[in-house]
Amino acid sequence: MNVATTIAFGGSRLDRADHVRADPARLAALKNSSARLLRLEGLMPVLDEDGALQWGSLDEAGEDAELVFLGLIDGRGMFAAVPDVGDTAPAYAIRNVWQVLGQLSPADLATYGGARSLVDWHARHRFCARCGNPTAITKGGWQRNCTRCDAQHFPRVDPVAIMLVEHEGKLLLARQSHWPPRRYSALAGFIEPGETIEEAVAREVFEESGVQVRDVRFVANQPWPFPSQLMIGCHAYAENTDLVIDTTELEEAHWFTRDEISAAMAGDESGRLLMPPSVAIAYQLMKWWLEQ
Amino acid sequence: MNVATTIAFGGSRLDRADHVRADPARLAALKNSSARLLRLEGLMPVLDEDGALQWGSLDEAGEDAELVFLGLIDGRGMFAAVPDVGDTAPAYAIRNVWQVLGQLSPADLATYGGARSLVDWHARHRFCARCGNPTAITKGGWQRNCTRCDAQHFPRVDPVAIMLVEHEGKLLLARQSHWPPRRYSALAGFIEPGETIEEAVAREVFEESGVQVRDVRFVANQPWPFPSQLMIGCHAYAENTDLVIDTTELEEAHWFTRDEISAAMAGDESGRLLMPPSVAIAYQLMKWWLEQ
Repeated sequence: MNVATTIAFGGSRLDRADHVRADPARLAALKNSSARLLRLEGLMPVLDEDGALQWGSLDEAGEDAELVFLGLIDGRGMFAAVPDVGDTAPAYAIRNVWQVLGQLSPADLATYGGARSLVDWHARHRFCARCGNPTAITKGGWQRNCTRCDAQHFPRVDPVAIMLVEHEGKLLLARQSHWPPRRYSALAGFIEPGETIEEAVAREVFEESGVQVRDVRFVANQPWPFPSQLMIGCHAYAENTDLVIDTTELEEAHWFTRDEISAAMAGDESGRLLMPPSVAIAYQLMKWWLEQ
Repeated sequence: MNVATTIAFGGSRLDRADHVRADPARLAALKNSSARLLRLEGLMPVLDEDGALQWGSLDEAGEDAELVFLGLIDGRGMFAAVPDVGDTAPAYAIRNVWQVLGQLSPADLATYGGARSLVDWHARHRFCARCGNPTAITKGGWQRNCTRCDAQHFPRVDPVAIMLVEHEGKLLLARQSHWPPRRYSALAGFIEPGETIEEAVAREVFEESGVQVRDVRFVANQPWPFPSQLMIGCHAYAENTDLVIDTTELEEAHWFTRDEISAAMAGDESGRLLMPPSVAIAYQLMKWWLEQ
């Protein structure tokens, strides 16, 4: 499968220009009048009338603002300022999130997603987890160092396994209680220290649904900026179909037929399934599965 | 490919028993006389004469010790105590690391790796990154909460892309200056916020070697406990072969022929290549490539 080029939040035009980060003189030189500052309201983007990300000049950031170097576009330094507070809320808890982000081009969506994860991380890491003293931004915003114990801290990306579980042509999908009615999606969970992707898939599916799986394989992946996950999309076959739902995580789970998923994908809202938003990897995994 | 069952640091016998973590009564009941405590000296395991992990009773941990619930084996609660200090050193900087760990069975190695990552994370996260106040262990050691601002903190797993880059039957391998002479391995780098695995592979290879790649695909993965990475092994084809080495990261990089890699894999130490240790996913990726 190659959904990499079509997956939402991938495909930014930014050149991350890693070598610039560790070069203070080069970085300072990029903070010139052609540099651009991503306009944010809190962690949400400010859009122009065509639905593109708005960029201002660096003057718009306060004098004491922490500036993160996102990378280069057409040779210009592109920056974002760290907001006062971060936000670990999941996407569904953010008002109008898809109405706003749905206006962005794929490249803008990816640029925004990466910037959001990064500035949010800074806002939530102003202190050293090792000793409790203040940290200071360095390497153009790709690192924070403790001002006291010299511990180094790096932006975080949390790998998450998300999986289509199949049994005789049906897929196991589940919903959380705070989602819109009839919205179902793929099971998912954080990969823990000391486990492979395959082990995480098997553990999460069993914990949440009581289903045992085999033949886990990788299908596709996606960065997800609420706040900073790497979604690792997999497919697996179920060994059993009786469901024992973990109701602390899920409200319901069901086996859905190919016809039900196909109808929901085609926009039919009369069934028992409404698709996840198309920006979610779960949607792309289901599309891939139907096309197989 | 299915190296999941043979990859080092995967395949623990532990049942992580996720439901126990959030159940204080159940967790307390497991801290009984049949509970076992992983014996560690700092972050290294203590082995018995057969090269198995040593486990003691919970009494061996001090009264104030922070105990992490690793999971269940044969119904017994398996625990580890958080050491005074953590350690982010890479494996090559740990004295005798493969001599010690090479004695462990695959299941013990996986149990140890997960435990090491987890207790190390606790030792380095005793304070809240958001506000600087002390954090307290909760959920059996799968979470820390700030005692002041209520921020929740979770054990960290850092996804890393590691990739075989191929051109006309040769592989691009590189070495760092502090490695043993003639040891080469696959290029690798941390996946950053806002990028897909494929984008991270392309960026890292270009940054470190000047080579542009296409057709990135996932091959295998491995948890790596120095301190807590998820190694995501990929294969890609090179578009060009001239090397521009980033000497801040690498000492040398070369294209190696199939014959050179095959000879090194067979134990021939007369060539210009010595293999990475077999516990490393780079070794397994090269083995997979030769067997293709």
